[in-house]
Amino acid sequence: MSPIELNADVAKALEGLSGRPIDHVFFVACGGSFAVMQPGKYLLDRHSRLPSDCLNAEEFVCRDPRTLTTKSLVILCSMTGTTRETLRAAEHAKAKGAATIGLSVDPQSPLSRAVDFPVGFEAPYTTGVPIDAADSNYSRLYQIVMGLVRHHDGEDKLAPLLASLGNLQTVIDRAHESFAAKFADYAPRLAREDVVYTVASGPSYGAAYSFSICVLMEMQWINSQAIHANEFFHGPFEVLDEKRAFILLKGVSETRGMDERADAFLHRFGSPEKIMVLDAADLDLSGLDEAFKGNLLPLIFFDTLWRFAYRIADIRQQTMLEARRYMKKISY
Amino acid sequence: MSPIELNADVAKALEGLSGRPIDHVFFVACGGSFAVMQPGKYLLDRHSRLPSDCLNAEEFVCRDPRTLTTKSLVILCSMTGTTRETLRAAEHAKAKGAATIGLSVDPQSPLSRAVDFPVGFEAPYTTGVPIDAADSNYSRLYQIVMGLVRHHDGEDKLAPLLASLGNLQTVIDRAHESFAAKFADYAPRLAREDVVYTVASGPSYGAAYSFSICVLMEMQWINSQAIHANEFFHGPFEVLDEKRAFILLKGVSETRGMDERADAFLHRFGSPEKIMVLDAADLDLSGLDEAFKGNLLPLIFFDTLWRFAYRIADIRQQTMLEARRYMKKISY
Repeated sequence: MSPIELNADVAKALEGLSGRPIDHVFFVACGGSFAVMQPGKYLLDRHSRLPSDCLNAEEFVCRDPRTLTTKSLVILCSMTGTTRETLRAAEHAKAKGAATIGLSVDPQSPLSRAVDFPVGFEAPYTTGVPIDAADSNYSRLYQIVMGLVRHHDGEDKLAPLLASLGNLQTVIDRAHESFAAKFADYAPRLAREDVVYTVASGPSYGAAYSFSICVLMEMQWINSQAIHANEFFHGPFEVLDEKRAFILLKGVSETRGMDERADAFLHRFGSPEKIMVLDAADLDLSGLDEAFKGNLLPLIFFDTLWRFAYRIADIRQQTMLEARRYMKKISY
Repeated sequence: MSPIELNADVAKALEGLSGRPIDHVFFVACGGSFAVMQPGKYLLDRHSRLPSDCLNAEEFVCRDPRTLTTKSLVILCSMTGTTRETLRAAEHAKAKGAATIGLSVDPQSPLSRAVDFPVGFEAPYTTGVPIDAADSNYSRLYQIVMGLVRHHDGEDKLAPLLASLGNLQTVIDRAHESFAAKFADYAPRLAREDVVYTVASGPSYGAAYSFSICVLMEMQWINSQAIHANEFFHGPFEVLDEKRAFILLKGVSETRGMDERADAFLHRFGSPEKIMVLDAADLDLSGLDEAFKGNLLPLIFFDTLWRFAYRIADIRQQTMLEARRYMKKISY
């Protein structure tokens, strides 16, 4: 394994932005792409003095924050590059004179054409072929973020990030093996549940969010909510009893304490049969730089959870993408 | 009805901050108080060039954003002023040299003593006696926000805010009457549901969040999630069928379009018997200044929904605060 090179689209965007004063970053998307943006903001928060917001695209347009100015950078993401709200957000950002970067899988997508700097990525859903995580939306977004940090905060950590991204797919492949027995164990029970909550914190929260709304709800019609591991103690934990199903994503970095506290409580009052814990501390994360481990976990969690979702789908006899009744089947 | 005066605690905080350079605001709390902070950020976003973040208190401490500096203002809220995570956040903010404001009902609470500027408010839950909305946490928070806007953005809209707050309780009282028949109609059906989703956007999202996690989940053990009205279309809507229960909060301001789209979809595929829509356009909002109507709605929605919650509790024979099994009953 060797470090990847800075993606050419990202390099072009960073180069194009280098002469431009930036005082605010907006991470803007919808649904699954919005979930990817959340750890992007987390990474920037950890490394930069640049303030930022992470907003659903339509909320961004309607809210129209006064911090959106000619000195803003708006980073948008839509897998196909055709999401209406995200396109509207790109137009809104440009009308305000902000710089725009648009992530999509297609260099000719409407989003790519609408922004100053299109950045391509790969997604297994479009090709059906497995991708290397180094080519994912997360990877490109993190490269953008650490490029901004290098320019604005004088901290150059692109090299260890690129090295970590070069090793990431191997780490994910190992994680699939590590979690396989657990998935086989829990799938038959969780597949029968009408409600399955996900719990996470810090950079992993977005992965819990997308698993809840884009997989459990969207593709399996299982009721869900992504509960922040500390917010859990301020209301949601009251639904816990020995019958309730939860999936907890335990991180390894500065937010792990929150996950541990939730874990202890879940096992104190819930049934271990219904509480599936994916603990990153059980994984071999070698090859990932310490500074980025936490932020790379959502890729590992989400990728492995996809396999779990397919197991659930098999048991429920409800295929994944085909199980949608509304999305991309009717107009709304 | 007459305008209220700027709260003395708020005036003191604004006065104390006036000589201090502030370049970032953090809204920090947990659970129900966190839900109040969210429209606080919305109000600041609409009126100020000051960047801000709204974070769960423990997430704030663990994430430790680099934007937190001696030029930050950290606004914290905890009803009792004893929430451990919020106290920890106050200490963290002070250790970083940030200015701190702490909202609680007790001027002698640990939070009041931990911060530079304690700000009191009233809550019906502590006294059992109805309060005037002008004395609520929202009201005090909004006064702080518009005071910051006056100082930092040269826009003085405190007078119309204070006039609106002076009229707010009357508007809420009228809203109780307006929604009473609807609550009586829907309570028997929604009380029997195992899952009830709430949907909202913009400044009302926080009210949906607190109703979901602090009322439905915490006090009635009903499964729930507060779904953002646009995110609804990017996954969650797939759980909708004619049996699924939703409560939609329709606003009147710049985010109303999102609520209207969700409303149309909910009624296209859901059952009107299970979809309870609280539409602010049906209310007499006279007395509220146009600029603040949207931001005052969460107070109206949450206050009226409390009555609905009591109706549900009666039917489920599960009293409200007494129905908690963990919160404030065991240590965790």
